[in-house]
Amino acid sequence: MQTEIINIGDELLIGQVVNTNAAWMAEQLNLSGFKVERVTIIGDEREQIIEALRAAEKRVPVVLISGGIGPTKDDITKTTLCEYFNTRLVFNPDAYRDIETIFARRGYSVTELNRQQAMLPEACLTLPNPNGTARGMWFEKQEGLQGTTVFVSMPGVPFEMKAMMTDHVIPALKNTFQTPFICHKTILTQGIGESFLAARIEKWENDLPTHLKLAYLPQPGIVRLRITGMGTDEAQIRKEIEEQSAKLESLIAEHVFGYDMDTLEEIVGRLLNGKGAILATAESCTGGYIAHLITSVPGSSAYFKGSVVAYANDIKSELAGVLPETLQKHGAVSQATVEEMATGIQRRFEADYVIATSGIAGPDGGSTEKPVGTTWIAIASPGEVVSSLFTFGDNRERNIRRTALQALNMLRKKILQI
Amino acid sequence: MQTEIINIGDELLIGQVVNTNAAWMAEQLNLSGFKVERVTIIGDEREQIIEALRAAEKRVPVVLISGGIGPTKDDITKTTLCEYFNTRLVFNPDAYRDIETIFARRGYSVTELNRQQAMLPEACLTLPNPNGTARGMWFEKQEGLQGTTVFVSMPGVPFEMKAMMTDHVIPALKNTFQTPFICHKTILTQGIGESFLAARIEKWENDLPTHLKLAYLPQPGIVRLRITGMGTDEAQIRKEIEEQSAKLESLIAEHVFGYDMDTLEEIVGRLLNGKGAILATAESCTGGYIAHLITSVPGSSAYFKGSVVAYANDIKSELAGVLPETLQKHGAVSQATVEEMATGIQRRFEADYVIATSGIAGPDGGSTEKPVGTTWIAIASPGEVVSSLFTFGDNRERNIRRTALQALNMLRKKILQI
Repeated sequence: MQTEIINIGDELLIGQVVNTNAAWMAEQLNLSGFKVERVTIIGDEREQIIEALRAAEKRVPVVLISGGIGPTKDDITKTTLCEYFNTRLVFNPDAYRDIETIFARRGYSVTELNRQQAMLPEACLTLPNPNGTARGMWFEKQEGLQGTTVFVSMPGVPFEMKAMMTDHVIPALKNTFQTPFICHKTILTQGIGESFLAARIEKWENDLPTHLKLAYLPQPGIVRLRITGMGTDEAQIRKEIEEQSAKLESLIAEHVFGYDMDTLEEIVGRLLNGKGAILATAESCTGGYIAHLITSVPGSSAYFKGSVVAYANDIKSELAGVLPETLQKHGAVSQATVEEMATGIQRRFEADYVIATSGIAGPDGGSTEKPVGTTWIAIASPGEVVSSLFTFGDNRERNIRRTALQALNMLRKKILQI
Repeated sequence: MQTEIINIGDELLIGQVVNTNAAWMAEQLNLSGFKVERVTIIGDEREQIIEALRAAEKRVPVVLISGGIGPTKDDITKTTLCEYFNTRLVFNPDAYRDIETIFARRGYSVTELNRQQAMLPEACLTLPNPNGTARGMWFEKQEGLQGTTVFVSMPGVPFEMKAMMTDHVIPALKNTFQTPFICHKTILTQGIGESFLAARIEKWENDLPTHLKLAYLPQPGIVRLRITGMGTDEAQIRKEIEEQSAKLESLIAEHVFGYDMDTLEEIVGRLLNGKGAILATAESCTGGYIAHLITSVPGSSAYFKGSVVAYANDIKSELAGVLPETLQKHGAVSQATVEEMATGIQRRFEADYVIATSGIAGPDGGSTEKPVGTTWIAIASPGEVVSSLFTFGDNRERNIRRTALQALNMLRKKILQI
């Protein structure tokens, strides 16, 4: 089942915004058995929009559109769709109620510009947008090349588009079109690079049956391995993927931390909840990023007490409990300091587990002895503290991210005692 | 001068790779007076490539292509270009010498696959690639709609494409075509939604001369306003944009925090550095995210001492200096608590400025009196503490982000005493 994506927005054509919507939409469509044939980015221009719709309609039965449906003057997608589908704007009471609700929640009354957003094309089904004031629009055209052609217009704001795709568009597309059965399993690994991983699993990968495919999806600090199977016998495909996944995991067991949409911060949260244990962090080079990841999980206040971000040395001593002699003798980026941070915060916060970090994130502060990327991580657990030294790269953002992921995976293993 | 970009690669259509090339190419083209009318992403398929070339040729005089010119079987752009331009592959000694040099540097001899990369279309000028083995290809066609049409094929690997664009493609395009001058200025605002902003500046926007355009670029918590001018008289356009930008700013002065690529965390960092002042944070609902933003800026250790992330109430008392009676009487999400957090950490860290946050990020923890999104922010400065109450939305991630940006902008204004 073939689809095209049209992303509308002048900001995408001057390079001010990277078009991340297309990749996300394409991934979701692929996971549901829809192939993306083409992505077209055009500006907020009537003629361009109409030409792009007309050309896509000739090629594919599903056209997904994002962008250009905000309340302001430059957003002309809605009126252009009206023209294309030869329909008119009518007042939609449901849409208006949703807009009122959003404004009421913020303590405002609806502005005239936003009231206009409840005027929607008569010829479409509208799709709710719980995160914004622009509804989605689902049009069907019968005279297309392959019979029915579906056009769906969604907001350009990524989180609004994503919720609408997941909750409405993908389920409705699956209802409308017959797609082959596609099954995916993603194995999540931490602490090993793509090429080392590829060398470790080379033989297994070469022996994979041809109807199963492996994809490497690297991110800073994490490599996701996705096994995809396609066919008609759902039970058989699921069974084969499970078997191959088990073989794969046995080759790289120490690096596998989860599956599919898991995150390390969610996994750690579930483990702590299950044990009724309390976590705190003592962060130097990660600067609060580990606490941020942990508290990005809803309900984290049940197991996370807090953090001391000890960027300055006197804070490491006074709040995190590092002895001034330790700092003087070994320096801030040292095993002794990071272990004292971990046990100091464990006592002070009365926490069961503590993550502590100290490193040189860069770009400045490195030396021959301790180059940029040098990082100590300690994990304090009941009655014990362990620590490890890592040498990451020279990119500040990636060093912070890799330190945080490595630390969370060390905590995961410590809780599981593996 | 109008252009189109064609990005070729199956990986872009399954969502495995975000297409960052288009945004970068578009930005460079715009800065040189070339307008990008459309971006098309297609797979490594002969028919798709030919159709995309044919369609682009009908619309614009400049077509820039990236991707699909590597040494492997799936890379078919080069042979397809030969077909499209009715030419043949010939051995290019310069290209072969470059390939040998690259392989020698890595200590290998040239493989047969890479030797094939020195076979290049007879009808094109080739462009050197110091970072890889695939040369660029510059084709000209005389029978295009507007006279000469230029097609340039470049590698898909971002750093190879970027060097080729900068060193060869942009200079050659400027030599070939006369371009108008294009100038952008982006005004960054915080704390006001897109539609409220539009209502405030409606009259100014309507009165804009037609050769200046305004675009709204919203992100969670921030709306960027971009003014674009185009013409032949560079000095005149720059002057007009500055005049209009000044008028615009006077209408929304309290929300403007910077320009173009500025971030709030960088601006605050520069201000603190300039004053030799020290910052710390006391975070509840933001869970370390403000400290993370601040420490994402290289060199932030010069002005940032650290943070107490006080998720649990006993940490708010013991480390952040909130009186237990205050917590009992007013609760954790209250003006009294957030102000005591700010002044407590100011004393404890011997900091000049402190940001403190306490709110209900959601999705749980709300009540009728204090619904999800209720957030107190306090700023302690030398001799003073101020605080404000905000009602954000019901999305945890956005509430954390909006709180952080609001807090950083409050700090900015406090430092500037505006």
